[in-house]
Amino acid sequence: MLLDGHKIAQAIHAEIKDVLQKLATHARKPCLACVLTTKHPASASYVQRKIKACHEVGIESQVFHLQPHCTKELLDFIDKLNLDPMVDGILIQLPLPPHIHLLEVLEKIDPLKDVDGFHPLNAGKVLLQDPTAFNPCTPLGIKVLLERYEIDITGKHVVILGRSNIVGKPLAALLMQDAPGCNATVTVAHSKSTYLKELTRTADILVAAMGRPKAVEADWVKEGAVVVDVGINRVEALASKSGYKVIGDVDFENVKNKCMAITPVPGGIGPMTIAMLLKNTLKSYYLRNKLQLP
Amino acid sequence: MLLDGHKIAQAIHAEIKDVLQKLATHARKPCLACVLTTKHPASASYVQRKIKACHEVGIESQVFHLQPHCTKELLDFIDKLNLDPMVDGILIQLPLPPHIHLLEVLEKIDPLKDVDGFHPLNAGKVLLQDPTAFNPCTPLGIKVLLERYEIDITGKHVVILGRSNIVGKPLAALLMQDAPGCNATVTVAHSKSTYLKELTRTADILVAAMGRPKAVEADWVKEGAVVVDVGINRVEALASKSGYKVIGDVDFENVKNKCMAITPVPGGIGPMTIAMLLKNTLKSYYLRNKLQLP
Repeated sequence: MLLDGHKIAQAIHAEIKDVLQKLATHARKPCLACVLTTKHPASASYVQRKIKACHEVGIESQVFHLQPHCTKELLDFIDKLNLDPMVDGILIQLPLPPHIHLLEVLEKIDPLKDVDGFHPLNAGKVLLQDPTAFNPCTPLGIKVLLERYEIDITGKHVVILGRSNIVGKPLAALLMQDAPGCNATVTVAHSKSTYLKELTRTADILVAAMGRPKAVEADWVKEGAVVVDVGINRVEALASKSGYKVIGDVDFENVKNKCMAITPVPGGIGPMTIAMLLKNTLKSYYLRNKLQLP
Repeated sequence: MLLDGHKIAQAIHAEIKDVLQKLATHARKPCLACVLTTKHPASASYVQRKIKACHEVGIESQVFHLQPHCTKELLDFIDKLNLDPMVDGILIQLPLPPHIHLLEVLEKIDPLKDVDGFHPLNAGKVLLQDPTAFNPCTPLGIKVLLERYEIDITGKHVVILGRSNIVGKPLAALLMQDAPGCNATVTVAHSKSTYLKELTRTADILVAAMGRPKAVEADWVKEGAVVVDVGINRVEALASKSGYKVIGDVDFENVKNKCMAITPVPGGIGPMTIAMLLKNTLKSYYLRNKLQLP
């Protein structure tokens, strides 16, 4: 079975659009502010897709191109967005330039506008199961995708490959919670883990998020497992117009016949991440306007 | 091998005492404020042990007995401690009375005085590996105990039984970090986990923190594993003067011969938790006074 993230994301976009169309006509719309700090083409393209999705569902958006000389310059700009009552969500597109201090920047964002869920306060709230948390978009997208396909992970062994701050660690925090759609036995493995293949073969749900193209081969996967591929690796492809193509962390062709379900790349977790960004922006809008969440 | 938490904790107390004796004679001492909100005898005895440890090493302490009628009453009191420049650490002894909102209380504590490490900002900072985090005392105590016994957990499989906010979840967050004394492959299992015994038998380091007396039996443990028992269960013991005795989550007598190393209860993780509370109070004192950490 193919877990079609694109299709599910489209359905979620339609749900959000529906909610927003029911808002009073005089009400202001939710607004997402995106900040780009590099000229990296991948970053620009990610932001573009987010803006397009906002537009589709009726969320307003702003894009700011900065090239901060120092961390403080970016912090001051974030402060303006924090104070702007028209801005519901703030997204600082990563990666930042190397001279900018990442943790300081993420901590500067008002946690109530932190629709990426990268602020440590939100990371901690996810871990401690505080319902006011903003879940990071990729982990939340994985959870929702599995739920929509009615794949119950209660008591199942989820093995996560990769311990990044934006996927592996918050995904573990989320899926181990005592909450609907969670309740998994969760393992986080990484580059220093020994006996990796023996471990991944015990996984009922295997999540590949290490950023290494096609690293997960067929003999890493248990027969009948569910495989979630979070990898987005650009590799050279001369035949393609852009000169590159995007592949995942899983050797899709060889793994797909062995597992019960698998996400493709592209069209799997990528679109779900964007759908969750919209959902978080809507959540922020509702919380900030003290409305009941739909 | 017995992992003697009492002995290691005593050594850490001596180190802290030594640091404090080297402070300028006119400098004020670090101060820990403890708040008791119930007449529960176990809570009173825990606070007593913490105060005694403070006294031993030269940390000042204050104990406040409150019986708050509502959450706000306790929040207001915490605010006073937050603003008191003489207070470095604030400890709200748990459990709280059932009508008090736990997460609200923990979030009220100034994160810079949160020496228990229970504030979600600190939980998130631990997860995201921000060095300014206060680590929760029990998880930190486990890490330090293993380090002092030179048990390297790099790449090893740590299986944690129990997903509480004060032990299981923050311990997982801590041990999966890319940092000295960490770098483990970490699994969190719990009451909803299936094939529990098969899982625990794969553990190189097995941490029992579910709060069920003697739940971990010998056939749960791999030959040569390291077993860490976080359980503190009071069970009736007519022969004892107090009428009860404290036992762990591990069936110590039967497990001890199978494993390479094991912590006793009492005298294992309990004293380490208190030693880490002192260490966190010292860290707060240094950070708040902008001193270089020793």
